[in-house]
Amino acid sequence: MPTKNPQLPPNSPIDSPALHTFEHWFEYPIRAQPHDTDYAGVVWHGNYIKWMESARVEYLRSVGIEFADLVALGCDLPVVELSIRYHKPIKMGMAATVKTRMELTGVRMNWDYAIVSKDGEELFVSAKVTLVPVDREKSKIMRQLPAVMKDAFARMLERGKS
Amino acid sequence: MPTKNPQLPPNSPIDSPALHTFEHWFEYPIRAQPHDTDYAGVVWHGNYIKWMESARVEYLRSVGIEFADLVALGCDLPVVELSIRYHKPIKMGMAATVKTRMELTGVRMNWDYAIVSKDGEELFVSAKVTLVPVDREKSKIMRQLPAVMKDAFARMLERGKS
Amino acid sequence: MPTKNPQLPPNSPIDSPALHTFEHWFEYPIRAQPHDTDYAGVVWHGNYIKWMESARVEYLRSVGIEFADLVALGCDLPVVELSIRYHKPIKMGMAATVKTRMELTGVRMNWDYAIVSKDGEELFVSAKVTLVPVDREKSKIMRQLPAVMKDAFARMLERGKS
Amino acid sequence: MPTKNPQLPPNSPIDSPALHTFEHWFEYPIRAQPHDTDYAGVVWHGNYIKWMESARVEYLRSVGIEFADLVALGCDLPVVELSIRYHKPIKMGMAATVKTRMELTGVRMNWDYAIVSKDGEELFVSAKVTLVPVDREKSKIMRQLPAVMKDAFARMLERGKS
Repeated sequence: MPTKNPQLPPNSPIDSPALHTFEHWFEYPIRAQPHDTDYAGVVWHGNYIKWMESARVEYLRSVGIEFADLVALGCDLPVVELSIRYHKPIKMGMAATVKTRMELTGVRMNWDYAIVSKDGEELFVSAKVTLVPVDREKSKIMRQLPAVMKDAFARMLERGKS
Repeated sequence: MPTKNPQLPPNSPIDSPALHTFEHWFEYPIRAQPHDTDYAGVVWHGNYIKWMESARVEYLRSVGIEFADLVALGCDLPVVELSIRYHKPIKMGMAATVKTRMELTGVRMNWDYAIVSKDGEELFVSAKVTLVPVDREKSKIMRQLPAVMKDAFARMLERGKS
Repeated sequence: MPTKNPQLPPNSPIDSPALHTFEHWFEYPIRAQPHDTDYAGVVWHGNYIKWMESARVEYLRSVGIEFADLVALGCDLPVVELSIRYHKPIKMGMAATVKTRMELTGVRMNWDYAIVSKDGEELFVSAKVTLVPVDREKSKIMRQLPAVMKDAFARMLERGKS
Repeated sequence: MPTKNPQLPPNSPIDSPALHTFEHWFEYPIRAQPHDTDYAGVVWHGNYIKWMESARVEYLRSVGIEFADLVALGCDLPVVELSIRYHKPIKMGMAATVKTRMELTGVRMNWDYAIVSKDGEELFVSAKVTLVPVDREKSKIMRQLPAVMKDAFARMLERGKS
C-alpha cells in the first residue's frame, strides 16, 4: 500500500473564521430546493459548488464582465483548484447567502467563499476556488488577463475599499 | 476590505503525484456523458464529486458495507472537508478510472483520489475527501466507528497489504 | 422485437402555444449559468426540471405553503408524470422566466409551465407536471388534500381570477 | 385566467405496460447513489433523465456510433420532446436496469424507456424521448440522417429482429 500522499492541501483542523470577516464581500442569495437535497434532507455536499459558481458569475457581471462574452472572445476561466469545509448543513427550504471576494496573484484568481445564514450569524460552508484565464484556441494559460478583465478588476478592487 | 483569509487549506503549487502511486488503489470506471459536460465540452468541475462519491460507496460495498444500511442503522457519513486539483480536463465521451484508498485517523476517514486515463498514463484530477461518522439521532460525531465498519475496514486494510 | 408501445402520452406534433396564454401565470426568474449548460453551450435538457421545481416551490410559498413544513407534517408531493417540449435552447448567460399555473383534478395537481424570454416574446420550453399528495407514513396517495393546502389553493385560485 | 392548455401530450391514466414487453431491449445497469437521491431517500425525479441519456449514448456506441464523434462532425442530436411516468420510486442503494429501444420516423428518433428492477419484476419508470439530428453550423434540422447513422441504425434494427 502506498504511503506517500498525492501533493494536495494538508488536512488542517477545521477552524471557523470569525463571521465579521465577510462584511464587505459580494452577496448572492440562495434557497435550498428539493433537488439540492440528498437522503439526509440537507444540501448534498457537491451542490454548493453550483452556488459558488453562480455567485462568481454574478459578481463578475456586477463589475461589467459577462462570462459568456468572455468565452465567446476566446478566454475561458477553468477552475484549477478548489477546497471546501462543511461547518453546518443547510436544510431543505432554508435561505442563505453566498459571500465572496476575489484576489489576484498574477493571472490566478483566488476566490474566497463563506455561505452564511440570512442574519449572518451562522457559517455553513467556507471555501476557496482558484481559476486561471486560458486562451481557448491555444489551450494555454494566458500570461496576462484580457484588457476587459483588468479594467473590471480595477473597478472591483476600488469598490472593495469603499 | 478584510485581509485575513478564512482558515482554509493554503494554495500550494500544483504538483502532480507520480502515477505509480495509485497502483493498488480501488478502481471505479467512469465515462463522461453529455450531462456531465459544460459549454467547454469537458466535464464540469463540480461533477467529479459525484464520481468520487460513487467510487467511495462501491469501495465500501466491496468490503461488505452497504451505505444505505449504515444510514438505516442511524449512522451517517457526512463530508466535512474536500479539496480537488484539476490537472487536465476529461472530454465528452472519454472513459477514465477513479482510483481511491482510505486511511483512518481516529474516526476521521481520509480518502485520497486520483482520476486517471484508462491506460493509467494521464492524471486528470487528484483530490482528498474527509468524512466523519455521525449519530443521526443525536446529530453528534461518534466517538467510535460502528462495529460493522471497524470489521470492514480491517478487511480493507488487509487487502491493501496483499 | 416488441411492437406495442408502453402506455405513454402519444407523440403529437410540436405546436407552440400562443404566448399571451401565460399572461397571468406565476413568474420565477432564472439565469443559465455554466453548470446548467452542456457541450453545446446551451442548457442541458434535464436541467429545466430543476427550475420548474423551484418555480413550483416558490409559487406554493407565495400562497403560504412551506414545502419543507408539508414534508415535516407527513405529506409528500411526488411527481407522477412529466412531459416537456423543447422549442428553442437557452444559451449560457441568458436570463429567462419560468411561468407556471396549477389546476386541481381531485387530489392531482396539474402544473402547466412555459419558460419564456424576459420580454415574453420567445418560448423556450413548455411542460406539464403532475403531482399527488402522499401520506409518508402509509406510503399511500391521500384521498383528500391536507387542510393547509386546500386553504392555500383557494387563495391561489382567487388570485388567478383577479 | 387562460382556459386553453399549451399543446402538450394529454394526461392519460397511468397504465403500466406489461413487463415482458421490454425483453429484447438494450440494457444499461444503474445504481442509486447518495447524490441521486433527494430528501425523501429516493432518486430525485429529474435524475432519471441522466440515466436515460447514458443508456442512449451506450446503445449508440454498441452499434458503432460514438456520440462525441458525431458532434465533432457537425451533427448534434438535441432532445425535442420527453415524457416520463413514475410508477414506483428507486431507493438509495438499489440497483436497477434501464431498458431502451429506438424507432425512426423519418429523421425523428423515438426512444422508449423502461427502468426496471434487476429481476425484471418491478417497473419504476417508463418514458419516451424524441431526438432530431441538427446541422450544428446551420442550426437546422437535417433532412436526412448522416450516412454513419443510417448504417448503424440498419445494424441496430437487424439485431432487434434476431
